[in-house]
Amino acid sequence: MKMFGKSTKLLLAAALIAGLGTEALAKKVYKWKLATTWGPTLHPFIDAPTKMAKMVEEMSDGRLIIRVDAANKHKAPLGVFDMVKGGQYEMGHSASYYWKGKDINTLPFSTMPFGMTTPEQYSWFYYGGGMELMEKVYKKHNLLSFPGGSSGNQMGGWFRKEIKTVDDLKGLKMRIPGFAGEIMAKLGLTVTNIAPGELYTSLERGTIDALEWVGPGMDINMGFHKIAPYYYTGWHEPGLDLQFLINEKAFEKLPKDLQEILVVAMKASAFDMYLQNYHMSAEAWASIEKDYPNIKIETFPKAVMDAMKKANTELRKEMTANDPLLKEILDSQEAYQKKVRKWTEMSDYIYLKDNL
Amino acid sequence: MKMFGKSTKLLLAAALIAGLGTEALAKKVYKWKLATTWGPTLHPFIDAPTKMAKMVEEMSDGRLIIRVDAANKHKAPLGVFDMVKGGQYEMGHSASYYWKGKDINTLPFSTMPFGMTTPEQYSWFYYGGGMELMEKVYKKHNLLSFPGGSSGNQMGGWFRKEIKTVDDLKGLKMRIPGFAGEIMAKLGLTVTNIAPGELYTSLERGTIDALEWVGPGMDINMGFHKIAPYYYTGWHEPGLDLQFLINEKAFEKLPKDLQEILVVAMKASAFDMYLQNYHMSAEAWASIEKDYPNIKIETFPKAVMDAMKKANTELRKEMTANDPLLKEILDSQEAYQKKVRKWTEMSDYIYLKDNL
Repeated sequence: MKMFGKSTKLLLAAALIAGLGTEALAKKVYKWKLATTWGPTLHPFIDAPTKMAKMVEEMSDGRLIIRVDAANKHKAPLGVFDMVKGGQYEMGHSASYYWKGKDINTLPFSTMPFGMTTPEQYSWFYYGGGMELMEKVYKKHNLLSFPGGSSGNQMGGWFRKEIKTVDDLKGLKMRIPGFAGEIMAKLGLTVTNIAPGELYTSLERGTIDALEWVGPGMDINMGFHKIAPYYYTGWHEPGLDLQFLINEKAFEKLPKDLQEILVVAMKASAFDMYLQNYHMSAEAWASIEKDYPNIKIETFPKAVMDAMKKANTELRKEMTANDPLLKEILDSQEAYQKKVRKWTEMSDYIYLKDNL
Repeated sequence: MKMFGKSTKLLLAAALIAGLGTEALAKKVYKWKLATTWGPTLHPFIDAPTKMAKMVEEMSDGRLIIRVDAANKHKAPLGVFDMVKGGQYEMGHSASYYWKGKDINTLPFSTMPFGMTTPEQYSWFYYGGGMELMEKVYKKHNLLSFPGGSSGNQMGGWFRKEIKTVDDLKGLKMRIPGFAGEIMAKLGLTVTNIAPGELYTSLERGTIDALEWVGPGMDINMGFHKIAPYYYTGWHEPGLDLQFLINEKAFEKLPKDLQEILVVAMKASAFDMYLQNYHMSAEAWASIEKDYPNIKIETFPKAVMDAMKKANTELRKEMTANDPLLKEILDSQEAYQKKVRKWTEMSDYIYLKDNL
């Protein structure tokens, strides 16, 4: 047995380990945790990260396993940003505009009042410079942010009484996040954001008088119509996009193939959630017409809408005056919207007009 | 050196091989070929399979490599179905309604005249039973079919002269595929399908008098406006979806993780193409208004549209009379459209109406 020299013996020992442990060596397993803002039954929002994690696990053959913690587990639905930034969680699923109090520049990446619809906004993200601007904003926080699924065009919310004039809005306490919240505050409402799990109780107890949540697919299950039966069509969130957040350092530790698996899975599940909510909204709308005759569908009167538009224009001017990055983001969105809306008009709008 | 017995020696030998070849063993590489109907510069159609292949290669760390052959390579742009079915190509990228001559039931999975828009149709695919019906149709051909990217709402096509009445259509030779082609035939046109690479020459030489292709993002580059400057808004392809085709046996030979990688990459690239074309259309529309004053934008007069709708209704009845599967597919689409359109109206349509 002199056929092997010393170094060959070492090689053999290594090979033995490798031979017995080939699979284990090839399969270094990464275990991540993801914190969501949503409760465990809040469909389809909770489904976006859940399906993403499932895709990742299957595509990576178990090499990247992401545990999705709903809000009832970590008890901090609006603490997702901090927990991912701090590294307690490698990932999060939430909405960018929830962080406007920490950094106002995170706000426009969810949706803007009188802004872009879902296909328009996603075109802006991927082909109109949106992703680059989002990176610029989140880089400062050592975070990566990706589109996390669109709700489509949202309904304008639930009110106890009909809104006939701008005065009817004044003094109301309303849950409405993002830039729309700023507009409502300017119109004299007391505006707040409340985590999804506490919305119904807040409305029931009178902590708030009105709220917007999402659209029929998600709202009906929440029961808001029992207290506030006036249901308004939308103006304020024409293409709300949720958000996947990733801790930058955690991402950098992943091998390239797992990084790509994660990025593609987020994209596919974001798309899927848009469709799931479109479907749920269609089903729920049919059921409103059939099973909920007491819900009163309304559109804000022109005078109210004009006041909102005026406040929107003024606010954009005020808020961008001393914030060049916010100005850059809003200017980019406005220019893109102007161009893309013309195509939306010539294609889907003209078509729908003739085929309702 | 008596520390190893015979079986241990064998194990060592195996381990040696394994040790030297760990990577090679763990990395069995699958090499696939994909045939497209599109030329190498036909953006964004050619980009959908190209980006899909890139994602697959990166996610699989080089274990599944898909070579994308444009039509100039395999010379059979409308032969994709046969080549994938026959196994010369493991995959294809084309459009389902191109196969209506082989199997009429493949037709409705691309788009239907007066049918669903892109978000509506994708909701039907993934949440309204569309995928199951598509599987039922393609299973018979030992093929798998997946959504391959939507063009969005298409323009109604290019005409040499203005279409003022139904009589102006009669006798025209037009390139228009799918169910819309059947409608046009019923209205007295001579209808044909022509591969993309031959469209301009066919129009120039008078083989056809009119054609529809896609929308401004793709049409302007083709130069049709130089010959046929009347550009009509759409009615016939409200959400054309392209198609990934897979040879079923080839798919079954892939390990589970590569199957999932392929499925997710197709989904992500289909979504991406919708956005890419939305973006290209918006850019091109702006350039029409600025740089192509001779293009005449028109909408078909109501009488013409009514004749198309009438032909559509009659044809659906005729064609489904003796084909229960076609009836099942069209009934499923119609029922879904009726429900989902109501939501499209309450959300995007009402919003756009006030924000053009």
